[in-house]
Amino acid sequence: MNSFQLDARLADDSIFITTLPLCQIRLINDRRWPWLILVPMVQDAVEIHDLTEAEQSQIATETSHIAAALKAHTNCTKINTGALGNIVRQLHIHVIARNEGDPNWPGPAWGYGERVEYRESELAGIVKTIQKALAGSAELSD
Amino acid sequence: MNSFQLDARLADDSIFITTLPLCQIRLINDRRWPWLILVPMVQDAVEIHDLTEAEQSQIATETSHIAAALKAHTNCTKINTGALGNIVRQLHIHVIARNEGDPNWPGPAWGYGERVEYRESELAGIVKTIQKALAGSAELSD
Repeated sequence: MNSFQLDARLADDSIFITTLPLCQIRLINDRRWPWLILVPMVQDAVEIHDLTEAEQSQIATETSHIAAALKAHTNCTKINTGALGNIVRQLHIHVIARNEGDPNWPGPAWGYGERVEYRESELAGIVKTIQKALAGSAELSD
Repeated sequence: MNSFQLDARLADDSIFITTLPLCQIRLINDRRWPWLILVPMVQDAVEIHDLTEAEQSQIATETSHIAAALKAHTNCTKINTGALGNIVRQLHIHVIARNEGDPNWPGPAWGYGERVEYRESELAGIVKTIQKALAGSAELSD
């Protein structure tokens, strides 16, 4: 895991929130939707099936944890999860809180319009709120 | 599991391929992309975190199995997986074979244009080919 390096585009588009046993959790800097990504700290993983079976099970656990916490925090209509990687190949799992009437509902959030960044002044507060929401959920084991 | 009933819209849009220990595997009837879905045979599951931990681990195993088999079979550029459920709430996981230059590449397949059904005359052959491709991969345990 020591050689893991975050893709430069993911680093640019998102803000560090926390780490879980397998994944780095980051907030996509787009205020249109509450949108987190999980990036497994495994060098050269592109597809989910590139992970070991233990890692696959762990990423399922961590994705469910993040999805449940984001749903509880936002009280959204539906969680959307996905692993696309058509643009950035480094494996990353999206967890997005969706609501009826949000931009492009009921279509996907991916590839829709232009990213709208959070205001610099609000970002620290939002990051802290999300860190608290995730920490408030059940602990994860590895 | 006995009370599981497939959503009517999923039934209409897709063709039965096989069952794995947890999920029914179906082919989306859209010839624009090779596109499978996994539907866990669990009544009233909407979000992945509605499943038990054992089921979450099993669905990760089955998704990876289907993704690896579809990638090997199609030799595609990238597998896209996702669980959206904005239209059909019954939990289902998409596994789509994507290639550079395919419709809407590198954007998502979901919600793009209109479904193009397979020809009636080719469907039986395609279903058999996919059944073979999935069966040729490693066995699954539950």
